[in-house]
Amino acid sequence: MIRVSIIGSGNVAQHLIAAFLKAQNVGTEIELVQVYSRQIESVSHLLDLDKITNNFDALKEVDLYIILVSDDAIATVSSQLPFKNRLVAHTSGSIAIDVLNSDNRKGVFYPLQTFSKNKPIDFSSIPICLESQNATDFQLLEKVAKTISNQLFAINSEQRKALHVAAVFVNNFVNHLYQIGQEICQENQVPFEILKPLIKETAEKVMTLSPKEAQTGPAKRQDLETINAHLEFISDENHKKIYEILTQSIRTDGKKL
Amino acid sequence: MIRVSIIGSGNVAQHLIAAFLKAQNVGTEIELVQVYSRQIESVSHLLDLDKITNNFDALKEVDLYIILVSDDAIATVSSQLPFKNRLVAHTSGSIAIDVLNSDNRKGVFYPLQTFSKNKPIDFSSIPICLESQNATDFQLLEKVAKTISNQLFAINSEQRKALHVAAVFVNNFVNHLYQIGQEICQENQVPFEILKPLIKETAEKVMTLSPKEAQTGPAKRQDLETINAHLEFISDENHKKIYEILTQSIRTDGKKL
Repeated sequence: MIRVSIIGSGNVAQHLIAAFLKAQNVGTEIELVQVYSRQIESVSHLLDLDKITNNFDALKEVDLYIILVSDDAIATVSSQLPFKNRLVAHTSGSIAIDVLNSDNRKGVFYPLQTFSKNKPIDFSSIPICLESQNATDFQLLEKVAKTISNQLFAINSEQRKALHVAAVFVNNFVNHLYQIGQEICQENQVPFEILKPLIKETAEKVMTLSPKEAQTGPAKRQDLETINAHLEFISDENHKKIYEILTQSIRTDGKKL
Repeated sequence: MIRVSIIGSGNVAQHLIAAFLKAQNVGTEIELVQVYSRQIESVSHLLDLDKITNNFDALKEVDLYIILVSDDAIATVSSQLPFKNRLVAHTSGSIAIDVLNSDNRKGVFYPLQTFSKNKPIDFSSIPICLESQNATDFQLLEKVAKTISNQLFAINSEQRKALHVAAVFVNNFVNHLYQIGQEICQENQVPFEILKPLIKETAEKVMTLSPKEAQTGPAKRQDLETINAHLEFISDENHKKIYEILTQSIRTDGKKL
């Protein structure tokens, strides 16, 4: 049995707690021993009270501690742990492994997905990016990750930084373009609903085609007439600026004209 | 029985031909009478030869002619039709209804979706935006559209222009951001595969949440430290410019700082 404790109680922590509890229930060799939460109530709907603590000194010895706190709190929290030479992993895409305090063995356990508060998620298809400082710890991280996901990747801190930047493009920025699409619909009394099948299919397409192969539209086919008609149509200066820069980037394929 | 003919043989035309043939096979009141194609071979894998013509004069009388040609050919093709007072619809998102020649009654039959050459698509969930100049023609367009889709919308030319611009944002531009994500992965030897579940979930999220509610990430939470670390990490000037403008737009919610 591999014993794991989670330090943190936010949105992602709660999703991970639920995933480990589910793995435990179906009989995989994982045991969620404790959750550290400053406010006990934050996770009391998920766990028995005797498994929740708000005191670092009450943390039992386990095989792996997973820290799920905000990026800027990782260093502090890891340095407050009152034990040594145990395996402690953080879960952040943008923080290097060496930010963890050196009193313990360091690891990273980064599930690359966007988590919504009230939307349950199937962890089994979420890629988990693992990093450690030695092979034995990596094997342990792998065993733990395997109990909740089929998609494991060895990713070092530099690669993880790249992944996080790429994720900002394909998640945060993409979502913002959805918002602009919705704003344009609203301004013109068109239901945003009409665009939803297109949004889904656009994402679906790059599961099998490369984005470059999947690219269509006026910018791709250098259709200046349509591009100019669109720019004339768009009244919002910010939308216009974004239209121009992305059209330019598609037209020149990222190279300067 | 409603008799329909299609003028055009490109990618979207072929998807629509297949959809009508399927509707015909399952016994809905639609009959695909003819397809006009300059090159007979372009559609001979879909239809019997006696249903294909490359001669406008050979077009039989039907209830609805649907023109599926490139935007800049719509006016010309509609003016070459050798008959009068029949219902002729185009299928373009960015062309106004009045671009059609006035010898015939005008309509628009715009399926809002991205069509890939070799990827079959389920038409039933594709929104079809309809427009006509009189109520009787609208009813006919509706009847035809209903045989292949459950999602029909009355959209006038001005609204359709807005939809098309919005579609460029949520499809063309989103896909380009996928490409940038892939480029950043490639530059850093990270498999793009890792991002695919995130891409899917990002699209999935806005099926139920508004994009504004769904927005997360460093720009949204005004996390300047992460933003600056990302800008430092990105070496490509074009990627950097796009990162900056979209971050700015999220941070200020489209308003000037």
